[in-house]
Amino acid sequence: MDRMITVNVELGERAYPIHIGADLIGQTALFAPHIAGSSVTIVTNSTVDPLYGDTLRAALAPLNKQVSTVVLPDGEAHKNLETLNLIFDALLGSRADRKTTLIALGGGVIGDMTGFAAACYMRGVPFIQVPTTLLSQVDSSVGGKTGINHPLGKNMIGAFYQPQAVIADIGALRTLPGRELAAGVAEVIKTGAIADAGFFSWIEANIEALNRCEPAALTEAVKRSCEIKASVVAQDEREGGLRAILNFGHTFGHAIEAGLGYGEWLHGEAVGCGMVMAADLSVRLGHLDEASRKRLVDVVLAAHLPTRAPALGADRYVELMQVDKKAEAGAIKFILLKRFGETLITRAPDAEVHATLAAAV
Amino acid sequence: MDRMITVNVELGERAYPIHIGADLIGQTALFAPHIAGSSVTIVTNSTVDPLYGDTLRAALAPLNKQVSTVVLPDGEAHKNLETLNLIFDALLGSRADRKTTLIALGGGVIGDMTGFAAACYMRGVPFIQVPTTLLSQVDSSVGGKTGINHPLGKNMIGAFYQPQAVIADIGALRTLPGRELAAGVAEVIKTGAIADAGFFSWIEANIEALNRCEPAALTEAVKRSCEIKASVVAQDEREGGLRAILNFGHTFGHAIEAGLGYGEWLHGEAVGCGMVMAADLSVRLGHLDEASRKRLVDVVLAAHLPTRAPALGADRYVELMQVDKKAEAGAIKFILLKRFGETLITRAPDAEVHATLAAAV
Repeated sequence: MDRMITVNVELGERAYPIHIGADLIGQTALFAPHIAGSSVTIVTNSTVDPLYGDTLRAALAPLNKQVSTVVLPDGEAHKNLETLNLIFDALLGSRADRKTTLIALGGGVIGDMTGFAAACYMRGVPFIQVPTTLLSQVDSSVGGKTGINHPLGKNMIGAFYQPQAVIADIGALRTLPGRELAAGVAEVIKTGAIADAGFFSWIEANIEALNRCEPAALTEAVKRSCEIKASVVAQDEREGGLRAILNFGHTFGHAIEAGLGYGEWLHGEAVGCGMVMAADLSVRLGHLDEASRKRLVDVVLAAHLPTRAPALGADRYVELMQVDKKAEAGAIKFILLKRFGETLITRAPDAEVHATLAAAV
Repeated sequence: MDRMITVNVELGERAYPIHIGADLIGQTALFAPHIAGSSVTIVTNSTVDPLYGDTLRAALAPLNKQVSTVVLPDGEAHKNLETLNLIFDALLGSRADRKTTLIALGGGVIGDMTGFAAACYMRGVPFIQVPTTLLSQVDSSVGGKTGINHPLGKNMIGAFYQPQAVIADIGALRTLPGRELAAGVAEVIKTGAIADAGFFSWIEANIEALNRCEPAALTEAVKRSCEIKASVVAQDEREGGLRAILNFGHTFGHAIEAGLGYGEWLHGEAVGCGMVMAADLSVRLGHLDEASRKRLVDVVLAAHLPTRAPALGADRYVELMQVDKKAEAGAIKFILLKRFGETLITRAPDAEVHATLAAAV
């Protein structure tokens, strides 16, 4: 095994480790401490199971657990109540009990649904995240957000529920399509932009190494992203305040995803474009200077992410943003940038929001 | 307003009051402190809404909130994922936000489903329980258990989630069918049997007053039941150990409910019969004396509850009990009685379990 790095998410009795490194899925010793009961259910999808399912099952074999696998259809379009119910059917069908451990093997959709199933099955069973996309390694595996989409809104139904451990195998990114790698880089850029100007500069300098999937660069990017996010989450587990800054780019981004229909754009692509729009609004409201906005646009472009928003119409954008979870009584809250590493959360006048929407298309 | 009694459930930052008394649903002052946001969604069913919906809406009117009502079909048969989704549809349709308060107006099914919807909607919104059956007043409104059924098991999908307050209106029991009143008395009997020999004797002495729905007797029964359950839950919120004693009668009872199809027997009826079966097993295993078993059977009979189990066949009973949430790796855990006020949790030899099943039919 190459050098493995561990980031600890400090949440008191819900604290857990994130192990980051190459070829970790096959390491029995990483799973053994986190499986207490006599059975394990792996939840994965039809794309990932053929790639890494056997490696994971081989790693679990020496533990002498009853191991079953649920293979879900792949894609954000399946992140719904019907697919969630397939997990419950499988758990009850295999007589999973309160000590059965769920292992999420896949990207953010698998992680979110498996985590939510673990939160709800018998009112809570343990689970382990094995994220196999860059996006899920840097984003959805930290913070305990689990859930599913509703036709009227993304991630509207869910729970805060922490895993026993996250095993982020950088090696799994070798099979990731380029478009999905870029979507993950979007969240890395976001993390630098909101919380750490030095890390943002590092990303600018290393964007080509990330695009080429170089292990050292990826390990550093995942490590720093997880550290920053873990620090924010540890201060605000239930999203009372500070944690909202992690939604930079997501207010516009969620509207893009919902407006086009989930799955049309990847989440990270929508966030990439959403950050550009949030930076534009930040400049219009006098919070951010033009040079910084330009740097953000340039690194989003360099990551091969979209910077032009789909033409949904301004009214539709506003309508979609009003049902965002961050909205209160219909008032949209924007996460804006003051400079790299510093954000503010604010409402915005309709005129400027419309100007941003007009400029973005 | 007649004399109102308040029991506080001590759960640290999740502590909440249970107000018990006659004609509380119309009291604006009881709701006002627990509704922080600008909107309220009442979740009720087609039986209860015509009886108490207008009273509740009139009580809320002075608070100047946006109030909407979701009317679900009545009955345990509807405690499923499809009906739960009707609540989500209504919340998203009315643009409910993170501060929207849900009010559960109805019995245990409405309380369990509304609580679970509140736990999951946007990963958690506040809710108030207004239980309108004796069973839900003494049982499901205390303890934070929420959830829905799965075709393969009762309450298999859910969350631990505490309400802001419980408003137990004894007056609402005047419209309760006799069979449902008896089902509630079953849980009162259970609470006395497992935790308080003095309260059990009080129930024996007052069973006719409870059967006649006398307010003073009901208020005392609800108060003592809530106090005892609140004390148990405060010591073991997540059901790690002690709390399991509250499932006395439920292992057999859940098997009856699942075996007949949910809704055929009322939950309390199944628990009444399940307690008789658990007492029988307790005697067979040498834990309980015959005279105490006889007292339990007599009070269950006096409450007009069934004491003979449906003939599902012993194998089917065992199979159903193995998927109970309390089972681990297929081993059934029984909550047995040593004497009134004292329980033990144990596995039991197949022969004695089969003897109890044979004797119960």
